[in-house]
Amino acid sequence: MSLHGSYDADNIFAKIVRGEIPAVKVYEDDKVLAFMDVFPQSKGHVLVISKTSQARNLLEAEPEVLADLIAVVQKLTRAVTTGLKPDGVVVTQFNGAPAGQTIFHLHFHIIPRYDGVALGRHGEGMADPEELKVLAGKIVAAL
Amino acid sequence: MSLHGSYDADNIFAKIVRGEIPAVKVYEDDKVLAFMDVFPQSKGHVLVISKTSQARNLLEAEPEVLADLIAVVQKLTRAVTTGLKPDGVVVTQFNGAPAGQTIFHLHFHIIPRYDGVALGRHGEGMADPEELKVLAGKIVAAL
Repeated sequence: MSLHGSYDADNIFAKIVRGEIPAVKVYEDDKVLAFMDVFPQSKGHVLVISKTSQARNLLEAEPEVLADLIAVVQKLTRAVTTGLKPDGVVVTQFNGAPAGQTIFHLHFHIIPRYDGVALGRHGEGMADPEELKVLAGKIVAAL
Repeated sequence: MSLHGSYDADNIFAKIVRGEIPAVKVYEDDKVLAFMDVFPQSKGHVLVISKTSQARNLLEAEPEVLADLIAVVQKLTRAVTTGLKPDGVVVTQFNGAPAGQTIFHLHFHIIPRYDGVALGRHGEGMADPEELKVLAGKIVAAL
């Protein structure tokens, strides 16, 4: 999949925004939605997406969409840090399949890192929804 | 190194901002500076930093600093894409040593990905300055 192409309105994140697919949400406002990654690379892996933009990646993002997203990314990175007490946090954003992007709706990953724990490969296994809810509860409580 | 602590005004990026250490720059304005990573993880690895903030990481960043940074990150990700024609681009930002952070001055990485080429480990080897200048020239030409 190239960096260039057109937006697919039936991608999974678009369906989550429309409420057609459930998600364990940790933050939502008019413009931005954040939820637990169901294929987490570590405990507390959060995704932050735009609810309004059809940008597939950072290259296509409207500047105001990007500003809103990064503000929420910061808010949630702080909440993940306070709520889950990781030893570090990676914030990352993939553009194009060769960069690791699998869903072509602009999103940021917030990935907590814990000393001595290697990252799982994205898509290695689906998380237990009940466990995600517990993690989400701790993040929301720290917001 | 914990996520919490104090800013060291003698970190390498602070010295680059002050002009005490050279860097192959690709972008500079009053607030933001971008330059080629001398320990690149791939060809065209760019770093984007604040010139004014003493934030060590995303958690400590002033909201306006973050907004300015991400706007330049977008601009340069586009220029890297146009200028170097990678197959994908990773944008990433590390918080805390366990997350991979080595310089404790807030920065974003723009890391081009090329089909079939694995990422190098950050810090594996120092780049040839002349090669960095050629890459920088292509990025600047695409700005």
